[in-house]
Amino acid sequence: MSSALLTDHYELTMVQAALAGGTAHRRSVFEVFARHLPGGRRYGVVAGTGRLLDLLADYRFGDAELAYLRENGVVDDRTLDFLASYRFSGDIRGYPEGECYFPGSPIMVVESTFAEAVLLETLILSVLNHDSAVASAASRMAHAAGGRPLIEMGSRRTHEVAAVSAARAAHIAGFSSTSNLMAGRLYGVPTAGTAAHAFTLLHDSEYDAFQAQIDSLGPETTLLVDTYDVAKAVRTAVELAGPRLGAVRIDSGDLAVAAQEVRQMLDALGATTTRIVVTSDLDEYAIAALAAAPVDGYGVGTSVVTGSGVPTAAMVYKLVAREDAEGVLRPVAKKSVGKPSKGGRKEAFRALRDGVATAELITTSPGAPAPAQARPLLRDLVRGGEIVGREPLAAARERHLASTAELPVPARQLSHGDPVIPTVFS
Amino acid sequence: MSSALLTDHYELTMVQAALAGGTAHRRSVFEVFARHLPGGRRYGVVAGTGRLLDLLADYRFGDAELAYLRENGVVDDRTLDFLASYRFSGDIRGYPEGECYFPGSPIMVVESTFAEAVLLETLILSVLNHDSAVASAASRMAHAAGGRPLIEMGSRRTHEVAAVSAARAAHIAGFSSTSNLMAGRLYGVPTAGTAAHAFTLLHDSEYDAFQAQIDSLGPETTLLVDTYDVAKAVRTAVELAGPRLGAVRIDSGDLAVAAQEVRQMLDALGATTTRIVVTSDLDEYAIAALAAAPVDGYGVGTSVVTGSGVPTAAMVYKLVAREDAEGVLRPVAKKSVGKPSKGGRKEAFRALRDGVATAELITTSPGAPAPAQARPLLRDLVRGGEIVGREPLAAARERHLASTAELPVPARQLSHGDPVIPTVFS
Repeated sequence: MSSALLTDHYELTMVQAALAGGTAHRRSVFEVFARHLPGGRRYGVVAGTGRLLDLLADYRFGDAELAYLRENGVVDDRTLDFLASYRFSGDIRGYPEGECYFPGSPIMVVESTFAEAVLLETLILSVLNHDSAVASAASRMAHAAGGRPLIEMGSRRTHEVAAVSAARAAHIAGFSSTSNLMAGRLYGVPTAGTAAHAFTLLHDSEYDAFQAQIDSLGPETTLLVDTYDVAKAVRTAVELAGPRLGAVRIDSGDLAVAAQEVRQMLDALGATTTRIVVTSDLDEYAIAALAAAPVDGYGVGTSVVTGSGVPTAAMVYKLVAREDAEGVLRPVAKKSVGKPSKGGRKEAFRALRDGVATAELITTSPGAPAPAQARPLLRDLVRGGEIVGREPLAAARERHLASTAELPVPARQLSHGDPVIPTVFS
Repeated sequence: MSSALLTDHYELTMVQAALAGGTAHRRSVFEVFARHLPGGRRYGVVAGTGRLLDLLADYRFGDAELAYLRENGVVDDRTLDFLASYRFSGDIRGYPEGECYFPGSPIMVVESTFAEAVLLETLILSVLNHDSAVASAASRMAHAAGGRPLIEMGSRRTHEVAAVSAARAAHIAGFSSTSNLMAGRLYGVPTAGTAAHAFTLLHDSEYDAFQAQIDSLGPETTLLVDTYDVAKAVRTAVELAGPRLGAVRIDSGDLAVAAQEVRQMLDALGATTTRIVVTSDLDEYAIAALAAAPVDGYGVGTSVVTGSGVPTAAMVYKLVAREDAEGVLRPVAKKSVGKPSKGGRKEAFRALRDGVATAELITTSPGAPAPAQARPLLRDLVRGGEIVGREPLAAARERHLASTAELPVPARQLSHGDPVIPTVFS
């Protein structure tokens, strides 16, 4: 299905009025940025760019879309003709996926005619706001987990299609795997999972359930041990699977206490290599609180797919420059109370000292060389309408590791606070 | 695309182990319910059922899905064969869309074999948790707005596909229209929108921008008046459009004060029928605070699509009864600490006194007649695998009005509190 109608009505009426008024083809520069990092976060994480490039390739007004617009009188015939032949022919630059961002970072810069660029506002913001919110939360969880693996398992707590994108975003930001099979199929994210309480309840006894699971999935499986009595279940599990039992999962109760008790039991039973996986409304704070517990992996659901209290990344899409009547590109900015924007096309650099980030440098001198000890942040994503910014998901994962490793140590603090580096406009 | 892989990995491994162990075809009853109403809400609103029925019709494991599962070793060949011929052949009953629900309400009851029913867990929860979270927030906003129209315009603040479902859910719960064109095309939700700040900034002056918009969209359009100076913009708007000007939109500042000032200006300029629409991070509290302001309509974005602080409805899908080895259907329930469930197949009724709801009555006597002065809440949605529960969206909107009208007055309180009626199990 075309992505073209994943768009706000007013993008099309603006195109109509601009076509009629002769301003539709003025060269324009739109910029995606966030005025602040919601939730007192120390840094944000860009995600969604790769998905967006795929959606852009499908951004076409076909017969079905045009018929809907015509029958409902959304726009006039002239605009329908424009939409029928719509192809984005401009340039898009942006922060690549996995990169950290800060307030005012020009996360994406879209340059084309007004009509071509304004149409993309809704789709670009939907993708970046959702995926970056998930990645920003996931990155904090990955830091809190240290080296222990994180499984994303929140599909059931968010929209069924958003779930697939959330799994992808969490993987970029450090999660090892996901429960979501579509994320495995579409993006190659490793998938994981064995059994729920329903499987135990299906059987006439927990013994029967564990036996059936081990028979079919092998002793290396993960057995869920809190359906009735955890201690009894752990004994049954080791009795049936032996010391090769892969893991047990605990999904309720005081997880720190339970993990300690289960570890002692497993060790006493000789299952010293059997891992303990915990789940149950975990977020970055609960994960951090389990740092000293004998936990070998975390399953995270609701909190990661809903951005852990910040379900949207607060990015906006603003016109920052456009041609005037004389054909000169001029910076523009609205003056709305409390919602100012900075006009002008931007370049962005991460300033570093001894490998540690010190500031987000943003300049309105396009083409300016990178300052000393600073790396450029904007990459070409679309050039003259051609998509050039695709990359494997693994590249985004590696970039995220490098980008966060470069941040000052307080970036890892989970408490509410200011961005860990300042944004400096010059 | 098939909806079948919008599913957690473990649903499939459970099917594998149950097929191998001979329990896969045990008759089973799963129930969707919420242990609590998150966010101190007084009532919840069911939404998503209609979408879910469409997704169920597409729940098929085709060649592409099977190839992915085979190549990645997700399940064994026997399970792949089962999936290849998978068709849900059971029964689904549920609360219809727009209906209010309370903690413990059996919102959906799925009865089939274990293997057929367990596979649907992820998809059912994703749809109901997302759409019900949006509808539950939207309903509070509709009450806060009184009779004034609400426009849903949050597409850019949520996943691009979730946005379409959010627009639908908000419409069920009382929103008049949406900015989202796909929601218009797929579900017939009325769409609305005229222009953003970018349109004003595109032009060499606000005067030029307003003139172009009026020329193209007519004087009945809505002009956005806060790009530079609100008072100046209002004067320009009426100068150009005359008293037939449809509306002005204010998107920043103290909206109560601004609306008052703009109303006085419009009236003084003779534009007494020109409406005032306000937008800018509105939620149910901000809407309620504007009750005394001369506002004619609200545009709501972030808060409605993210459930106004409650982005997921906390519904779970639990096995409540299944056949034992003798073929007798027996209630089952896990005993996990803090996450108990109540076994047994349920019926549900809304008890009423003089037309006012007094309790949610839940019984585990299937087929029991409705108690006096109580109406049954469960409807047939799927019978023997055949979808029978489709209905027009207008029916859900009407049901929602009737269901909320029936609730005691404190249901409309926006403060955190207990559910407005108790849930009584018998």
